[in-house]
Amino acid sequence: MSLPDLPPGTPFGLDNLPYGVFSHAGEPRRRAGVAVGDTVLDLSAAAEEAAAPFAPLLTSGVLNPLLAAGPATWREVRARVTEWLTEERYAEQIRPHLLPRNEIVMHLPFEVADYVDFYSSEQHAINAGRIFFGDAAVLPPNWKHVPIGYHGRAGTVLASGTPIVRPSGQRKPRDETVPTYGPSRTLDIEAEVGFVVGTPSELGRPVPIGEFAEHVFGVCLVNDWSARDIQAWELQPLGPFLGKSFATSISSWVVPLAALEHARVTPPPQDPEPLPYLRTAEPWGLDLALEIRLNGHLVSSPPFATQYWTAAQQLAHLTANGANLRTGDLYASGTVTGPEREQRGSLLELSWGGREPFAVPGGQRTFLEDGDEVVISASAPGPGGARIGFGEVRGTVVPGGSDHSARLRST
Amino acid sequence: MSLPDLPPGTPFGLDNLPYGVFSHAGEPRRRAGVAVGDTVLDLSAAAEEAAAPFAPLLTSGVLNPLLAAGPATWREVRARVTEWLTEERYAEQIRPHLLPRNEIVMHLPFEVADYVDFYSSEQHAINAGRIFFGDAAVLPPNWKHVPIGYHGRAGTVLASGTPIVRPSGQRKPRDETVPTYGPSRTLDIEAEVGFVVGTPSELGRPVPIGEFAEHVFGVCLVNDWSARDIQAWELQPLGPFLGKSFATSISSWVVPLAALEHARVTPPPQDPEPLPYLRTAEPWGLDLALEIRLNGHLVSSPPFATQYWTAAQQLAHLTANGANLRTGDLYASGTVTGPEREQRGSLLELSWGGREPFAVPGGQRTFLEDGDEVVISASAPGPGGARIGFGEVRGTVVPGGSDHSARLRST
Repeated sequence: MSLPDLPPGTPFGLDNLPYGVFSHAGEPRRRAGVAVGDTVLDLSAAAEEAAAPFAPLLTSGVLNPLLAAGPATWREVRARVTEWLTEERYAEQIRPHLLPRNEIVMHLPFEVADYVDFYSSEQHAINAGRIFFGDAAVLPPNWKHVPIGYHGRAGTVLASGTPIVRPSGQRKPRDETVPTYGPSRTLDIEAEVGFVVGTPSELGRPVPIGEFAEHVFGVCLVNDWSARDIQAWELQPLGPFLGKSFATSISSWVVPLAALEHARVTPPPQDPEPLPYLRTAEPWGLDLALEIRLNGHLVSSPPFATQYWTAAQQLAHLTANGANLRTGDLYASGTVTGPEREQRGSLLELSWGGREPFAVPGGQRTFLEDGDEVVISASAPGPGGARIGFGEVRGTVVPGGSDHSARLRST
Repeated sequence: MSLPDLPPGTPFGLDNLPYGVFSHAGEPRRRAGVAVGDTVLDLSAAAEEAAAPFAPLLTSGVLNPLLAAGPATWREVRARVTEWLTEERYAEQIRPHLLPRNEIVMHLPFEVADYVDFYSSEQHAINAGRIFFGDAAVLPPNWKHVPIGYHGRAGTVLASGTPIVRPSGQRKPRDETVPTYGPSRTLDIEAEVGFVVGTPSELGRPVPIGEFAEHVFGVCLVNDWSARDIQAWELQPLGPFLGKSFATSISSWVVPLAALEHARVTPPPQDPEPLPYLRTAEPWGLDLALEIRLNGHLVSSPPFATQYWTAAQQLAHLTANGANLRTGDLYASGTVTGPEREQRGSLLELSWGGREPFAVPGGQRTFLEDGDEVVISASAPGPGGARIGFGEVRGTVVPGGSDHSARLRST
């Protein structure tokens, strides 16, 4: 008999058990928790009461100490939590630590070390090329050899729900000769999947692709907010910078890799065959079904299983030059876009560069307007037909402060 | 009478007083120190003994708490250190805390939050264009409007002296049709100047250019090691990634802005006039004289005063989209290259893309060979003809581990 009251079909069943960081009115200190049904298990308190050996890893207010502890500890914590939630003998001990999820506040689950963003959806790369360079555009010549990526700003990785201030920046539309500074006119989203590094690695030693699951703790959702006009003008020659660095939102819950065994699929065939350091017989495609809602309206359902490069390949690539991993490193997939129109992971693609507005309740959109709320959610297959839920990453666009222009006067 | 024994012409006189983190055989705990003459003042111990209110900021083993404390505290610490080192009444108290610098070990001075690399030398940008695209190459159209930059990997910012393992990666020379994975054949340096952020800023609020000195604590030297072959193949469309992310070395000492008042100069004229958020009447050019030594041989003397974009403009740009600053953010100038051949800040330029080897004792070089040692040093004008020294950033190239290829077998 399961101890918490699990609603039928809950995305947070006993096969999921994702980790997050929360506080509540009665206890403002941030603590580690596990989502189960409509509740959160106060993992910090439960582990302390049980005098679990891993209890000291759970008190810092971020998941980093747990992430750093490595796979053996991750397995131990998951096994103990499962016992606590399923064995009647723990019922009395555990029940006080199960709190209604609607009474808690979620925070950024971990302190981000370095943040890397990849570009691993072939359909997204094709679409981006066609939108900017016309229907004859082809993939960059390196694209099927190199899992293309770049470093983003770790300091602006934000908890789900943080308001997104519309960024200002330099924009130069094609029909103007000089740039101007002002609020972005083409604010966009990118629906992505993020991978959270737990176990660090040694400088100078590439991490072999076979060690993926020894280093990566789990998976979250990412909204890589993007100002297309700022990005277009700054992009050459060194890549995205201010068009991306103002905000990257992540979901509250980190789903451990251990919960995704039933979601693993063989990725699409890769031709040409990747270089040996990117080869593995282990299927690290993941059958995550994403959904993007704009003001509550479902606008797209990107399928993560269609990604060309897997997270295991990305990790091997990221360290192939000897760069070390740190606990809290986050790397994201890049925009997840499937082959169909209603599977596109950005408004850039949904509106085909702003040229084809799409319908939303009460109007239409090309890019985001102030007040728009974007929610990206996802789920994956679990055992016995159950779904493994990822919760959501949420954000609402607010206008830039009206005093910015005054503050930015020259001195 | 000055208390420490100051050698004539020392680059670490009483007008400099740069900060670093050190340990020594008698005390392995890392502690904050100030370089003066041939000694280091154990600032942690001196402040504790004096019961200085800022003493608790100096015990963490990194400078971050001091950086976070802001300009009023920075001024207070500098004033107290100056008193301690110059007033006879402190002599007995301070003398035990002055340690010979050749008996200590220096460490990474601060924990790096985000690392950004700019591209602010016009001559370097011109040279890079000509080397890759021929003599007719012109600056990118955005270059004189946008201080171009990108995020690098904070986790591989390394203390001076850390061995640099030759990175491997994908390389595809122009005359080959497919890439191969192996050690970089064109390992390079970039001599740069780094700016260290102390005071954080608020998300969504651009930092006006006039607030530069309220946020930036000081200046260090940076060697942005670069694998040109890896970089060339991966660069499009999202910029530098593994060609840079394996190592970025910084100097041991952070020279506070307060020591650079005599080094401030008007930067080169900017045409077209920058947008208002990049304008300031304050001269934030810095007259730093850099020197690059390869195996002890002076190969270049780049002048920092020729940089087109100033550090104040870069800070304003970095936050113009509302991205917040965190304590420990580091941003570097990009390669410092002057107009003359012997002022080039990279081997790429010194060897003109590898086509014109340059002489070094006992041979010639295009790019770095295993065993090569690179030392970048710098000084700036101080009061009364004194020089403000930056110390050096040092690194020696070591070959990649011979077992890498075995480890990287597919699984």
